[in-house]
Amino acid sequence: MSDELMVAPSFTVCGAGLAGTLAALYLARQGNRVTLYERLPDMRTHSVPRGRSINLALSRRGLHALEALGLAPVIHPLTIPMRGRMIHSLQGELTFQPYGRTPEETIFSISRHQLNCALLDAAAHWPNLEIHFQSRCVGLNLSSMTLEIEDTRTRTVRQVSARTVVGADGAFSAIRQALQRTDRYDYAQTFLPHGYKELTIPALPGGQHALEKNYLHIWPRQDFMLIALPNLDGSFTCTLFLAYEGAESFASLTDEDAIRRFFDRHFPDVTPLMPTLVEDFQHNPTGSMVTIRCFPWQYAGRVVLIGDAAHAVVPFYGQGMNASFEDCFVLDECLRRHNGDTSAAFLDYQQQRKVNTDALAELAYENYLEMRAKVASPWFLMRRRLEYALSNLLGDRFLPLYTMVSFTRIPYAEARARAARQDRWLDAALATLALLVLLALLWWLWPAGR
Amino acid sequence: MSDELMVAPSFTVCGAGLAGTLAALYLARQGNRVTLYERLPDMRTHSVPRGRSINLALSRRGLHALEALGLAPVIHPLTIPMRGRMIHSLQGELTFQPYGRTPEETIFSISRHQLNCALLDAAAHWPNLEIHFQSRCVGLNLSSMTLEIEDTRTRTVRQVSARTVVGADGAFSAIRQALQRTDRYDYAQTFLPHGYKELTIPALPGGQHALEKNYLHIWPRQDFMLIALPNLDGSFTCTLFLAYEGAESFASLTDEDAIRRFFDRHFPDVTPLMPTLVEDFQHNPTGSMVTIRCFPWQYAGRVVLIGDAAHAVVPFYGQGMNASFEDCFVLDECLRRHNGDTSAAFLDYQQQRKVNTDALAELAYENYLEMRAKVASPWFLMRRRLEYALSNLLGDRFLPLYTMVSFTRIPYAEARARAARQDRWLDAALATLALLVLLALLWWLWPAGR
Repeated sequence: MSDELMVAPSFTVCGAGLAGTLAALYLARQGNRVTLYERLPDMRTHSVPRGRSINLALSRRGLHALEALGLAPVIHPLTIPMRGRMIHSLQGELTFQPYGRTPEETIFSISRHQLNCALLDAAAHWPNLEIHFQSRCVGLNLSSMTLEIEDTRTRTVRQVSARTVVGADGAFSAIRQALQRTDRYDYAQTFLPHGYKELTIPALPGGQHALEKNYLHIWPRQDFMLIALPNLDGSFTCTLFLAYEGAESFASLTDEDAIRRFFDRHFPDVTPLMPTLVEDFQHNPTGSMVTIRCFPWQYAGRVVLIGDAAHAVVPFYGQGMNASFEDCFVLDECLRRHNGDTSAAFLDYQQQRKVNTDALAELAYENYLEMRAKVASPWFLMRRRLEYALSNLLGDRFLPLYTMVSFTRIPYAEARARAARQDRWLDAALATLALLVLLALLWWLWPAGR
Repeated sequence: MSDELMVAPSFTVCGAGLAGTLAALYLARQGNRVTLYERLPDMRTHSVPRGRSINLALSRRGLHALEALGLAPVIHPLTIPMRGRMIHSLQGELTFQPYGRTPEETIFSISRHQLNCALLDAAAHWPNLEIHFQSRCVGLNLSSMTLEIEDTRTRTVRQVSARTVVGADGAFSAIRQALQRTDRYDYAQTFLPHGYKELTIPALPGGQHALEKNYLHIWPRQDFMLIALPNLDGSFTCTLFLAYEGAESFASLTDEDAIRRFFDRHFPDVTPLMPTLVEDFQHNPTGSMVTIRCFPWQYAGRVVLIGDAAHAVVPFYGQGMNASFEDCFVLDECLRRHNGDTSAAFLDYQQQRKVNTDALAELAYENYLEMRAKVASPWFLMRRRLEYALSNLLGDRFLPLYTMVSFTRIPYAEARARAARQDRWLDAALATLALLVLLALLWWLWPAGR
């Protein structure tokens, strides 16, 4: 028995959020002994801090990584399909923009809390996977491979030795900080000037949704934006994206009056549906949004980063969780391909993922710049319809960028490069078309031509 | 007396390198009480670690900031004009590329050590400027404005309260680290895959320079590069830029034999001039090159960053020191414009400088990519000659990028944007010219045209 323990490869995963728990499940399935440390209490039995979640949208990549573990039956009942965007103008007009080319191409609203609980439930089935709650990783000594684990109730710190560490402890990862102290480590954290605030639209008295259910609702207002995603209980989780500073900003919305005036003025159709608006606004924290880039993601085959710890992105492409789940799938593939040789596997994983999550960071930031404004533009809509029409005509030879990102597993970097090529062709085709139309018009109008 | 002390604005400058000492001089001239802390012993009387310096090239911006303080008479005798690049091919052929359009447009080689000593000498003239050597800033508490100063001899740390702190403590600044702990701080450190090594060409027995004196000598070799800058004593300080890893890299040059073979093969004309090559190579440390970007550069009008602490850049445009000196000049201007209101002055300074040092970081990185290869290309040379000819023809309406960066004080960002516009015009003009030549040729050759 003790021999077996010595031989069994063991992994320590820091962070039982979405990425950490899924990674632990994949590692447990491979037969590894897995220990998972989480700073919060067990969220299935304790209430945990709420009010700072942007609801999540599961798309192809995330679903694929869950399904590959056989989790489809427990996840699907938690989801609500969203077939497209429902744009709310200031005048209350609604415009529908489908996400996919076919009704099957939808994304799925899911609550972070319910998804995380489902993953923890799944983890409980594996006898070789052990979870310690209220145990926060506060440090890692790379030469001795000793983790410092703080008991969050007593504030005492104990030393735990680890063979292989998976850092899934989020954007401000303590595991990454240990890597950051190594020589010539590349690191960047970049914050947006916008913050976000969670708000809510409760269910109607009969339990129905107060807005049409199967859509991601958006109120784009140039400098700021409100979105709403449906929950299973009939409510919507809303997120307001707003600048920290400026004329209309979190800094200027300091009292009840200012908050009411702001919402009545900019979101008149939805404000009456939010009875707890002011309390929510004043009570819920303002979240910041950061892009984290770092390299390398691994250390000597002994430490590896996944999820936000490796590549936090801003939420405007709805791909943060999906990319993190894809990390878990790829890491599992790499470990199996290299027969558990973690040095080779981690290098392979890093090589595959870094370029793609860098591309995703760019995509998400570009959408931050464009989404508040562009989705409301008629040109954007027309171009989008044209792309979908071309895609229906040409099949997989022409895929809109959103389709590649959300409904395929084409690597992000490849999707981005391919979309840029398609854009150039489409621009050239449209310019040629415009020229031909102009020539035809001139021919027809010119007296001498007749 | 004690009343006067309370009223006199006081500045604490961390770091008596080039930027910190010049900033302290500017602040002292304004009548402030200035305290300067430096981790090293006084380099005028103690020997300090050597062998990791890339020789410096003073250009317009740096000279201007020195001259504005009346330092011209002490600085000029320390400099050697470099009129252009002298390119050494593998075959030993020399090609001269002038830096400027006129002989007056030159840059100046200067030793970091001698320049720093001259600045410290100048500082000794100000009774309101006090320097503490062997005193390293290891921390700053922003709420209490308490600095932690470590005595580097005894390793004891004492607390010193400060009214206003100027962080001039380099790329790995402890002052910046205090700012980095504030909310939503943007920070990025990016290392190059190349490192550098200081080497030397001693003076000839008669004291003359072993290579032509008034040039910056370059041996561009695609993946690596050697440069040499003249010193007053007849020697040259050389810097080898080479990848850390790979077939020909610092990792592969581990023994005497490998070092000799590498130099004999790639730099045959200069290796005989370097008698201490192997010892220098093995003894001098390999330096890393990093770009640091951060924001904000100031905190509540009480802390401000200058030089590498705010914007370390890679050395390939020869502008790191010049930009840091320009920081000192602009900071002085801002403090005077706002009558010593540090809150307004630091915001003004940051606003003026951040966009320009970001542009410089890009310029320096682009030159890193291009310099090892492009300076040896005949196309590059031809284009460069054309630009200089145009500039002579059009005067200040057409200035080559290198001219704007090195011989004017046009802000870096403006210089970069203007060069991009000029490039587009030049490309269009060349394409038109090519087309006209082609048409003329066709006309002349076509039998029917005659």
